[in-house]
Amino acid sequence: MRISLAAAFLLVPVIASADPLPSWNDTGAKAAIIAFVDSVTDPDADTYVPEANRIAVFDNDGTLWAEQPAYFQLLYAIDVLKQKAGADASILTSDVLKAAAAGDMQGIMARGTEGLLEIINVSHAAITAEAFGANAHAWLTTATHPTTGRTYAGMIYQPMLELLSYLREEEFTTWIVSGGGIDFIRAIAEDAYGIPPWQVVGSQGNTSYALSGDGTPTLTKDGGISFIDDKEGKPVGIMRHIGRRPIFAAGNSDGDFQMLEWTTAGDGPRFGLIVHHTDAGREFAYDREGGIGVLDRGLDEADERGWLVVDMARDWGRVWPGEE
Amino acid sequence: MRISLAAAFLLVPVIASADPLPSWNDTGAKAAIIAFVDSVTDPDADTYVPEANRIAVFDNDGTLWAEQPAYFQLLYAIDVLKQKAGADASILTSDVLKAAAAGDMQGIMARGTEGLLEIINVSHAAITAEAFGANAHAWLTTATHPTTGRTYAGMIYQPMLELLSYLREEEFTTWIVSGGGIDFIRAIAEDAYGIPPWQVVGSQGNTSYALSGDGTPTLTKDGGISFIDDKEGKPVGIMRHIGRRPIFAAGNSDGDFQMLEWTTAGDGPRFGLIVHHTDAGREFAYDREGGIGVLDRGLDEADERGWLVVDMARDWGRVWPGEE
Repeated sequence: MRISLAAAFLLVPVIASADPLPSWNDTGAKAAIIAFVDSVTDPDADTYVPEANRIAVFDNDGTLWAEQPAYFQLLYAIDVLKQKAGADASILTSDVLKAAAAGDMQGIMARGTEGLLEIINVSHAAITAEAFGANAHAWLTTATHPTTGRTYAGMIYQPMLELLSYLREEEFTTWIVSGGGIDFIRAIAEDAYGIPPWQVVGSQGNTSYALSGDGTPTLTKDGGISFIDDKEGKPVGIMRHIGRRPIFAAGNSDGDFQMLEWTTAGDGPRFGLIVHHTDAGREFAYDREGGIGVLDRGLDEADERGWLVVDMARDWGRVWPGEE
Repeated sequence: MRISLAAAFLLVPVIASADPLPSWNDTGAKAAIIAFVDSVTDPDADTYVPEANRIAVFDNDGTLWAEQPAYFQLLYAIDVLKQKAGADASILTSDVLKAAAAGDMQGIMARGTEGLLEIINVSHAAITAEAFGANAHAWLTTATHPTTGRTYAGMIYQPMLELLSYLREEEFTTWIVSGGGIDFIRAIAEDAYGIPPWQVVGSQGNTSYALSGDGTPTLTKDGGISFIDDKEGKPVGIMRHIGRRPIFAAGNSDGDFQMLEWTTAGDGPRFGLIVHHTDAGREFAYDREGGIGVLDRGLDEADERGWLVVDMARDWGRVWPGEE
């Protein structure tokens, strides 16, 4: 049920008086975000955008949560693979699967994207969609990260949680548009981000519907990769799932370039945001080099394209939830 | 923004006092729908379902709008094909395409689903997603149906519009899950049904992202069929887009069987609804025979599965919007 206009007027002053982004330092980044939101929500402004068009999309790995030393989904896949291989070593049919089961990150990375997909494929297949979601949720909330000791679900960025909440309070819908697996992110998105499963867009494998032995209708993940939601795939994934061009897009790597490009090329007010990992002390520092989250072209072109580059060390007062 | 609890209490009596389904006769069908909605929205009942799980899915052709003498999208495709062939007859490379351009419905139907897909494929390709949506919207609101003389958008069932609104007032999200093309339905869904594009699930072709000659980021429909959202495909499509099992499903043909089966096999209160086309006078009468909207197994099994069969002639006081 939508709130009535009269009731909305009563509530607005309460919302406006509090700082919507308390974990953001008082730098230009915070001011730019708030100015944009003000401009599209002011019904008297030329820049006003109706609620149904206030679509904000967020990359996940490196934008909403951390992605070092490797994508969390890959770390999960390796844990699952180790467990499966412990019961039946014959599933390790290739070098990259053997490297994964041995926890050999260099051996995995040497095989590039194809190797990653093979690991995901073997570790995520032949399981019902419901069981997969439950397993992934349990892992994300109990397994701990090798350097921070936090749970993976505890490595969501507090400033981005505040940004999601702020946009929703201002009648945006907030979406995740990730190169990661849609089912993996959905396992935690509602609990962690307040984002329902239908507002998660991601890469996906094949799923089939059949009656199980006892006649129970069942959806099973069959493995394979039917869609890769990365680079040029991100605008395609957005059109598949959302069906409308966003007005706000946030990413952190060149895998998000086309999503920001397409979002900000639309008419009217648009906002592109890049999280720049500059904070080796509190998080990680990386950009143009490496195998994870490479940000090169985006860094070169952000200025001319009018995209905001958020400097994590400068612009964020805290990084993790629960920090003082 | 969600309405506050206090405000909700003020509004509930107003909503509850009006008949939410005025175009439904006072038969058992209407009473069964209202009893179900009451049972899942009463916070004190064991059968209460939280808002985020109140997902209602609707087939489109034959459930929300008419589908005779042929699916509206096929009639649209034929019109587009005629227009294209007028400019360049060499595009008619097969018998079924020639039959379509000649308006020969028997020649089309003789080729079955494969023929339909070929027509859709040729007529819907090599166009930007935005231009396609604008064309389809224009056709749906201006072209007229051969027997009723109504626009196609004017052949939506008034009782189903009321059901959609009623469910949304009761904090359901309402979704279309159609064997028809996702982009075709999205072209009209918000105007016609109050359903935003992201709550439309359907069959889909391939889409690609590229910069056009002048550097404009563009999404283009390339043709081909990447997903068929029918029969076993409907639960798969629901899981892809919604990521959660519905509690309410409505269809009219055996193409909806698995959607109803999967929906109603879940725990807790569930509702399956079949629109039975029994009204040759006001609409069309058909079920077990023919090439469009065949309802055979569903009719046999509805009773034992506890699905409500809506008898259009008996249960609907009016069929079309604007009728007295």
